[in-house]
Amino acid sequence: MSEFPKTPRNRVKRLPKRAEYDRDVVYAVVDSAPICHVGFVQDGQPFVLPTIHARLDDTLIIHGSTASRMMKALGGGSELCVTVTHLDGLVLARSAFHHSMNYRSAVLFGRGEIIKDQAEKLAALEAVSELLVPGRWAEIRRPTEQELKATTVVRMLIESASVKSRAGDPIDDEADYSLPIWAGVLPISATPGALRADARLDPAVPIPMHLAVFEH
Amino acid sequence: MSEFPKTPRNRVKRLPKRAEYDRDVVYAVVDSAPICHVGFVQDGQPFVLPTIHARLDDTLIIHGSTASRMMKALGGGSELCVTVTHLDGLVLARSAFHHSMNYRSAVLFGRGEIIKDQAEKLAALEAVSELLVPGRWAEIRRPTEQELKATTVVRMLIESASVKSRAGDPIDDEADYSLPIWAGVLPISATPGALRADARLDPAVPIPMHLAVFEH
Repeated sequence: MSEFPKTPRNRVKRLPKRAEYDRDVVYAVVDSAPICHVGFVQDGQPFVLPTIHARLDDTLIIHGSTASRMMKALGGGSELCVTVTHLDGLVLARSAFHHSMNYRSAVLFGRGEIIKDQAEKLAALEAVSELLVPGRWAEIRRPTEQELKATTVVRMLIESASVKSRAGDPIDDEADYSLPIWAGVLPISATPGALRADARLDPAVPIPMHLAVFEH
Repeated sequence: MSEFPKTPRNRVKRLPKRAEYDRDVVYAVVDSAPICHVGFVQDGQPFVLPTIHARLDDTLIIHGSTASRMMKALGGGSELCVTVTHLDGLVLARSAFHHSMNYRSAVLFGRGEIIKDQAEKLAALEAVSELLVPGRWAEIRRPTEQELKATTVVRMLIESASVKSRAGDPIDDEADYSLPIWAGVLPISATPGALRADARLDPAVPIPMHLAVFEH
């Protein structure tokens, strides 16, 4: 099944032509962003918090301190919404009304469950690390048993999802195209800067292969 | 009152030393990001959607199509959570456990109310435009009465808020500093690219002053 079924929960009602339900499209958005925003409800109050994530097949992985409010809420089995957004640009139209943004946003629905199995927990943490910096997991000190105890890892089966996106030029009202107003797109992207070594790093330790691309 | 009172809703429980409640700190984070993530609840289900925002004093402004599910939910007076996040870098520690991110994240709580007054609605839309591209509002075609009708503008009094942030080098376990593992920070920032003119732009229309900084 390559598409998420359209239900009242994931169906994009506004500008449905901007919506996609294909798993590959959803997962491409999820896998290419370092952070997501997790929504959960406590006593009727929504909370939205940013966090690092990963995906394993149809499961989203979120981890955090066992002591944190978010992890307790996420592991409790209640309904969650996890949103991953790339802002790609500002759309500068001739009219205020047609200003917009270019973006790709995946909205995922499901319920969280705490991963108890140690091997599975470790594999999930590896996936999080590998999404952020591929190749790094092999070179760092792995979690101790005590560190694993202090970390809660939650998996959320992605029951339902959609992507909404916009790309390209502004779309102005036909009459406005003749106005002498500059229109176009200001692209925006999340850009890595130059690596900054830890002040306490032994200068004899070289930059590893998995980070060489960021050395500039 | 320069600080938001600490209540169960906005108090940062995990790593409280990373938390701030000062209005100026909260608003600096809110005002320097082009998008936020809005959380609302419908039938017990949380939804988290990205959108453009602005701030007017202690009020957050969100707008959208009058037809959209989000705007209907936001204007209905139920509890909201709006989160504005800047990802500033990946924190690459020697141990997997101490990997982290550098970030600033403002979490705002309040209830939405639809702005009915036309002048106030227009001022709110101007604030949204000016947060994105200062100076642009003066040069574009303003909304018609019909366009204003098609737009719902919601204001949320910021009842409660906090900022959580992290900056600087990784903090490793003392014993790990002697490991021959590269550690440091990979900075990340949302960077504007070169302006891209609309394919239908009359080449005689110059890039205006308010966009000149992005011409490169």
